[in-house]
Amino acid sequence: MSDTNALEVLIQSLRCLPGVGVKSAQRMAFHLLQHNRAGAETLARALNEATHSIQHCALCHTFTQAEVCATCLDERRDTSKLCVVETPADQSAVERTGAYKGLYFVLMGKLSPLDGIGPKDIGLKKLFDRALDGTVHEVILATNFTAEGEATAHVIAEGLKGRGLQLTRLARGVPVGSELEYVDLGTIAHALVDRR
Amino acid sequence: MSDTNALEVLIQSLRCLPGVGVKSAQRMAFHLLQHNRAGAETLARALNEATHSIQHCALCHTFTQAEVCATCLDERRDTSKLCVVETPADQSAVERTGAYKGLYFVLMGKLSPLDGIGPKDIGLKKLFDRALDGTVHEVILATNFTAEGEATAHVIAEGLKGRGLQLTRLARGVPVGSELEYVDLGTIAHALVDRR
Ligand SMILES: [Zn+2]
Ligand SMILES: [Zn+2]
Repeated sequence: MSDTNALEVLIQSLRCLPGVGVKSAQRMAFHLLQHNRAGAETLARALNEATHSIQHCALCHTFTQAEVCATCLDERRDTSKLCVVETPADQSAVERTGAYKGLYFVLMGKLSPLDGIGPKDIGLKKLFDRALDGTVHEVILATNFTAEGEATAHVIAEGLKGRGLQLTRLARGVPVGSELEYVDLGTIAHALVDRR
Repeated sequence: MSDTNALEVLIQSLRCLPGVGVKSAQRMAFHLLQHNRAGAETLARALNEATHSIQHCALCHTFTQAEVCATCLDERRDTSKLCVVETPADQSAVERTGAYKGLYFVLMGKLSPLDGIGPKDIGLKKLFDRALDGTVHEVILATNFTAEGEATAHVIAEGLKGRGLQLTRLARGVPVGSELEYVDLGTIAHALVDRR
């Protein structure tokens, strides 16, 4: 394959995708060239379109092609509530519940001291400005219940306390539909502490 | 995320990659947009370049940007030997051994009746023409030692037998550096049958 430089370049380029090593990249390049060149061209166009048109919402920091995203512009939303999530996928999960009608702030990451990701890297300044702009009364901390998500929630709570905001956290507890026998003990302990 | 159409398109487009489901595609799109837009643009260029410049070698069917690949053009090669492999990665593995100086034919696939892949789909006609062009004396069947690879080797051998060619198959046996205790019994049995 020594003369197929474009193939080597493609294999190397595919490795910029998370979780894709040399073997996966080879398999992907081979599959695209052999079986799906139209898909490869569509993917190239989608990459270019996305990198050139997608930016961050001026209000909630999520991905959007506009200055302010559709959710932030939705006048039926309760502007007094701000739900803080780690990623657009997390926001999407909360939205799908249909149980929340307030606004969001999407951190686009989480504190991760071991990876060198500190408060500046996840835009906490922007969150604090937003939370304190006078419209928000309650900040709901909906970061994940992982060590990093908990640390992130803690730092945000510290940064906003004593400023007249109600700070809440999603309840920890037993997942709906699960049997106690199969739920891990830490979750049951939290469900006991947070019992209503 | 309802207004980020370019994001949805990107996520869908990433699913043309083998082994990438919705969750992986979301993670990839998110990673590229948040952390590596330069990588995304490089990948887009590599995809375009590859799909437009890479074709099949007129002689050995492997990927190349020229009419005939560098290996087939290499005058130091023994043109009497033709090694048949499934993929460019397999060819690369044989090359790295340094033990083979003949030429190749790359099937770009294997027979797979269950997936509806028959002799026409993997270009056996092109292989037969090449093997019978008068320069080749020995055809080495180096398809994989899987059910599909064995079936492919069998069909090729059937198609070429009685045409004055020497047909050989890679030896099956115990991998170098392995202890018999940990080698599967089928491999040991084959190593006994193929003993030298
Ligand atoms: Zn927004
Ligand atoms: Zn060639």
